[in-house]
Amino acid sequence: MSAEQTKDPVAEQIRAVLDGRWEAIRQQLRADPRFPVAEPDLRLDLEQHRARTLELVTALTDSELVRATLPVELGGTGDVGASVTGLEMIGHGDLSVFVKAGVQFGLFGGAIANLGTERHHREYLPGMADLSLPGCFAMTETGHGSDVQSILTTATYDPETDELVVHSPSPAARKDYIGGAARDARLAAVFAQLVVGEEQHGVHCVLVPLRDESGQPMPGVTIGDCGTKLGLKGVDNGRLMFDQVHVPRANLLNKYGDIDDQGRYSSPIESVNRRFFTMLGTLVRGRVTVAAGAGAATRSALTLAVRYGLQRTQFTYPDGEHEVVVMDYRAHQRKLLPRLARSYALALAQNALTGKLADISTGEITDESSQRELEARAAGLKAITTEHANDTIQACREACGGAGYMALNRFADLKADTDVFATFEGDNTVLLQLLAKGMLTDYRSDFQELDTRGAILFGARQVTTSVIEHTIGGSIIQRLISGAPGKDGDNALEDRGGQLAVFEDRESHLTETLAMRLRRAGEEGADSFRVFNEAQDHLLESARAHIDRIALEAFVTAIEEAPDGPGRDLLNLVCDLFVFSTVEANRAWFIEHGRLSASQSKGVVARVNELCGELRPHTATLVGGFGIPDRWLTTEMMADLASF
Amino acid sequence: MSAEQTKDPVAEQIRAVLDGRWEAIRQQLRADPRFPVAEPDLRLDLEQHRARTLELVTALTDSELVRATLPVELGGTGDVGASVTGLEMIGHGDLSVFVKAGVQFGLFGGAIANLGTERHHREYLPGMADLSLPGCFAMTETGHGSDVQSILTTATYDPETDELVVHSPSPAARKDYIGGAARDARLAAVFAQLVVGEEQHGVHCVLVPLRDESGQPMPGVTIGDCGTKLGLKGVDNGRLMFDQVHVPRANLLNKYGDIDDQGRYSSPIESVNRRFFTMLGTLVRGRVTVAAGAGAATRSALTLAVRYGLQRTQFTYPDGEHEVVVMDYRAHQRKLLPRLARSYALALAQNALTGKLADISTGEITDESSQRELEARAAGLKAITTEHANDTIQACREACGGAGYMALNRFADLKADTDVFATFEGDNTVLLQLLAKGMLTDYRSDFQELDTRGAILFGARQVTTSVIEHTIGGSIIQRLISGAPGKDGDNALEDRGGQLAVFEDRESHLTETLAMRLRRAGEEGADSFRVFNEAQDHLLESARAHIDRIALEAFVTAIEEAPDGPGRDLLNLVCDLFVFSTVEANRAWFIEHGRLSASQSKGVVARVNELCGELRPHTATLVGGFGIPDRWLTTEMMADLASF
Repeated sequence: MSAEQTKDPVAEQIRAVLDGRWEAIRQQLRADPRFPVAEPDLRLDLEQHRARTLELVTALTDSELVRATLPVELGGTGDVGASVTGLEMIGHGDLSVFVKAGVQFGLFGGAIANLGTERHHREYLPGMADLSLPGCFAMTETGHGSDVQSILTTATYDPETDELVVHSPSPAARKDYIGGAARDARLAAVFAQLVVGEEQHGVHCVLVPLRDESGQPMPGVTIGDCGTKLGLKGVDNGRLMFDQVHVPRANLLNKYGDIDDQGRYSSPIESVNRRFFTMLGTLVRGRVTVAAGAGAATRSALTLAVRYGLQRTQFTYPDGEHEVVVMDYRAHQRKLLPRLARSYALALAQNALTGKLADISTGEITDESSQRELEARAAGLKAITTEHANDTIQACREACGGAGYMALNRFADLKADTDVFATFEGDNTVLLQLLAKGMLTDYRSDFQELDTRGAILFGARQVTTSVIEHTIGGSIIQRLISGAPGKDGDNALEDRGGQLAVFEDRESHLTETLAMRLRRAGEEGADSFRVFNEAQDHLLESARAHIDRIALEAFVTAIEEAPDGPGRDLLNLVCDLFVFSTVEANRAWFIEHGRLSASQSKGVVARVNELCGELRPHTATLVGGFGIPDRWLTTEMMADLASF
Repeated sequence: MSAEQTKDPVAEQIRAVLDGRWEAIRQQLRADPRFPVAEPDLRLDLEQHRARTLELVTALTDSELVRATLPVELGGTGDVGASVTGLEMIGHGDLSVFVKAGVQFGLFGGAIANLGTERHHREYLPGMADLSLPGCFAMTETGHGSDVQSILTTATYDPETDELVVHSPSPAARKDYIGGAARDARLAAVFAQLVVGEEQHGVHCVLVPLRDESGQPMPGVTIGDCGTKLGLKGVDNGRLMFDQVHVPRANLLNKYGDIDDQGRYSSPIESVNRRFFTMLGTLVRGRVTVAAGAGAATRSALTLAVRYGLQRTQFTYPDGEHEVVVMDYRAHQRKLLPRLARSYALALAQNALTGKLADISTGEITDESSQRELEARAAGLKAITTEHANDTIQACREACGGAGYMALNRFADLKADTDVFATFEGDNTVLLQLLAKGMLTDYRSDFQELDTRGAILFGARQVTTSVIEHTIGGSIIQRLISGAPGKDGDNALEDRGGQLAVFEDRESHLTETLAMRLRRAGEEGADSFRVFNEAQDHLLESARAHIDRIALEAFVTAIEEAPDGPGRDLLNLVCDLFVFSTVEANRAWFIEHGRLSASQSKGVVARVNELCGELRPHTATLVGGFGIPDRWLTTEMMADLASF
């Protein structure tokens, strides 16, 4: 920890709360001078940046982070939470390293671990972990990104040779934007429509060698380079076309669908849809990790902008002598502090999500509804956290004026690198729809019942009332809501229980009315696409309300579990700001639906201003609480201010 | 014009309306194959990009655009409107060229033209125009950007040598982010505190040679390089420190303040404040140009995203066969169409602003209140248009998914290059305050009466009712408002006059209540900073309401003046969407202040959805109406879609 942070015991209390269950690995990486939280090196060209990124990722192979990625039987710790959290910490540094590591250990490694069986684990995971086998995850195609079920690449079983033939039938089938494909990957986890005999069995994953030892493309494999991108310059995104590429049958990752020695297909999951969604469920870890990294980048940006705003002055007070510290302007507080409060809420929701992922991975939680809930929540939290990242990093850049535009001050990379987080691992709009679907079906319905088009059509659901489940801090939340005196009255927002009830009520109302609208799609003669499409904005709003609610629950639970002290008191204030600024942002809805009167609504706006003022003296502590070591955030602009 | 555009007569009608008064130069530049609307060249390093940018700017010197920059007596046309519009057209291409040209012809040239006198014009403007004298505009300092009045650089008259001594007294006085300083500029227009004898006369502009013919820094001048920035890679931003640099007295740009042969200072403007604001008034052209360029970049992004959205499909209809064109999704329409409508409104407000600038420049309008109005409006429109650019280009990038992230598809540069438009030529928050100040004083009060701290403190103004002046399309607007049947009733938004009245009412109410709050700052014992600061968000909202109002007036006026036909009908629909989506975004305010009932507010949301649906079939025409030649917008992603 930096000198500054150790001087502030309140920041230290807050850091412990934000660090949560995987505090140990966070502290270990903070203290590790070799940990690759690299500053941008602006002299590098594309090739040099890629080379450096591979080097930094390779340097991780002896870290706890990568040990956490490997199962116990292969010498690792199998601690998925530590692996995600370790990657999250990289998110404070060079995000090319974060993404490249995420592709290798999370997506490529995850596909083998979750879709493959023991023989694949033994053969490939050690090389995955020590980077002797750089891989990639080839799912997205030029023609189909969000709609994975419609991808065009085929993997056809050839009984003559007992091989699978991987093929790209058209330009739209080209694998696109594949991280690692352009330069480094030797093996690709390729998603393709599996064809055995006359039958299509849906999307499966096949391991396809891309390059030989000397780096030359394998026969039938055409590799393209996406070239320069908006950001993530160190990630070698590329394109793949397969021209009848033969691979052994054993290269099929066969946990959920296999071809036996007689060339017969079988699967433990009968329904094609259900099988598809089960396989896609393994994407959840990637989404959890992306959300985690986006959160880290956001907190870096806020730390930089707040510290700059505490030193930077502009214009004088009426005395004509003293200049005003820009953080004292209400407009500046309004720009940064509600976003800071939301970052706290999302960080704590993220911790809960990582925890749930870990518990399901270790088998501590086994029921299918928890798995479905995890998938829905990961989709939603990824969408909201990455959207928040883009919005907040932009605000932070602007809050630092011209200095914010200079690459040495970090916002350039933070902005450019996180921008695509809104798109990869699932487009945010599609992911919010996925969450809404989960909300409507209460995570319990079998995917078989759902329309095959996944995120798009719901058909006639029978949901009339939604059941809010308090899966984060259940008993704590229930107790607070039950004990809220003003729950249904005029002062609902004045205590924590009332606030929780207000957030819950919004989600319930949106979800119930959504279900009513969508049920019409199932009526005789209904144009079901039209019914869905006309409710699409309603649907997205329901998903947002859900994430707001679980973020508040996570925040409240973390506060309730924290030891008494000034750190906890301050967290309570931040939580208030999160509540009031969230209600403020949605206050039109609250008035329209009779939840707030016009004058109460004005009161909410006033309360946000008041809370910004109350938090102003604590802003240094609040970014200190993020626990980002000073040496990870050196910038030219702070050195400039110090020289005045 | 491209083949596609000539095929659509409705788009052509709309183009003529959007082109407005300077249609001729727009059409001329569209048809000019040499016009430098360059695609990004991704292989260039910093130095190569800078060299190419200088080359492209130099290539402009024989264009109408640059002739328009020069006064008639020096062989130009002195057509400021054509100059701004020509630069706006460059905004469709490489924005480094736009900024570099803007610095040379607009800021550097503008400082000499507007702050200098005939001897400066003769000596420097020809070299400015033919690029034999590359210059820069050195105002911003590391310690003071928005607060120009507090800059620290001094220009002290030395009677011994009859020279001015330019000096940077501290690191905070360093000139920073100065476009052209790092590589090309030979002469700088340096803003400094003028000291003659014992007396400080406030900020003046002095021409200081930076480099000799061989490019070496002049004695006493230290030049730094800002290096890599988030964007605008081709602009060589740099830093300047002056160590007692002597320049001839004649280098003082002496229109508003001069030193005579006896070493005595004199100025035609007695008040130091008024003089300062008069000199700063010359910045208005830079702000008008930046807003114009941001608007152009936004329309480029929308054109790309809409055309992509009309070709791209994702997920199938319930028939399981046909894929849905993404523009058919309501969420996609919601993402792009309200932003498109706002882009129309802002483009037309921009045309009105450019026209006003031109009329004032040619002396057709001479009253001081018009000049003040122009300054306030330029500040506000620059802030809102650049904010809209950042928001819209981001939405367009996301609307194109992974393809949007590839540099070849243009969003990378559009985003990175326009990002700083929110900051340069005045931070957007500060500019909105400047506008609000103008609104409070009705553009009529003498700046002398105002608090010296400019944008920050208003003191006790006596404004109790604000007077809305219809300076765009005055009689048209008045007639529509007077004729509105439902003006005060429930259906105010149903006709154009009622809509205008609603926008006007919002601005009036916000401004009047703001004035009431701020008057308290003048009361005995009041903490005037606190009064101002607590009203800051109110103040910013007033400024936004003002820009919404004048944008609507500009839109309505342009429609009223357009010939009847399907182009005009479509513009009417777009204008409706602008109205309803603006009210929707601010609907909490309208309900809180008794302007809309809860159910009317819900109706507004529904109407936005309806209008999106009504405009959907016309989206190709609507972006065609922007009149951006196809060859300026070639991208890889459209070629990919065409190959499917």
